[in-house]
Amino acid sequence: MPNTHATDEADLRRCIDTLIAAIRAMDLEGIAALYAPDIVSFDIVPPLRHLGADAKRKNWADAFAEYRAPLDYDVRDLEIVAGDDIAFAYSFNRLSGTLKNGGAGAAWVRWTACFRKVDGRWRIAHDHVSVPLDMRDDRGLLDLEP
Amino acid sequence: MPNTHATDEADLRRCIDTLIAAIRAMDLEGIAALYAPDIVSFDIVPPLRHLGADAKRKNWADAFAEYRAPLDYDVRDLEIVAGDDIAFAYSFNRLSGTLKNGGAGAAWVRWTACFRKVDGRWRIAHDHVSVPLDMRDDRGLLDLEP
Repeated sequence: MPNTHATDEADLRRCIDTLIAAIRAMDLEGIAALYAPDIVSFDIVPPLRHLGADAKRKNWADAFAEYRAPLDYDVRDLEIVAGDDIAFAYSFNRLSGTLKNGGAGAAWVRWTACFRKVDGRWRIAHDHVSVPLDMRDDRGLLDLEP
Repeated sequence: MPNTHATDEADLRRCIDTLIAAIRAMDLEGIAALYAPDIVSFDIVPPLRHLGADAKRKNWADAFAEYRAPLDYDVRDLEIVAGDDIAFAYSFNRLSGTLKNGGAGAAWVRWTACFRKVDGRWRIAHDHVSVPLDMRDDRGLLDLEP
């Protein structure tokens, strides 16, 4: 009988809920604890690849520095596919709030997260964050709605 | 004893090699056969999400239509992480050749591919393709080197 991985899916959902809560609270340590120490991230900012949980923590700190508290963070259309010790998830995510320059910052990004279970705990070992490009002028499409 | 998944990793590598060969040959059927029929793709072109192998085939047809044959396709820094029936892989990929408008087309993109094993065969169930954005002008960074 195939393993339905219902427990793993519930654990992964809890892990992602913890991430959402930590982002809303601008809790950098809480965020970083969900990443594998050797995460390889294809983040929305350059360079092509960011190595390690410390690099991710810095990217979040840079993003938070643009906003006045409080922030909001939405995750929509989340799909989770779990195996025994490998899983992946993807969704549309949006960080929103008031920018320090006074504008309203909010864009939906596509998020893919690939997980490994180590010592019984799921951690994000790889992630990928982006928006599509308008091929006529190479501009990122930051105003698309899911 | 943990399963090392060496056979699965070799199968996945072969699957990706088949994809590379099919892209170089502009073989749309060969490419589409590697996707799950219900693939959810976060591709580099809009919209946010492309549903189904037919949508991916169309995106490849659109990309090929920009180029004169022959094309080249490079995959660099490929990492494969395999479980029993779920796996993921990521790399830097570059489609290159002579554009029909005479220019040279070549940009490294980040590629994440998430696989499911169905009836003993690995297929791409989700993928994500992007370049990072320059946050000063929201422009896609198409000239980065891995």
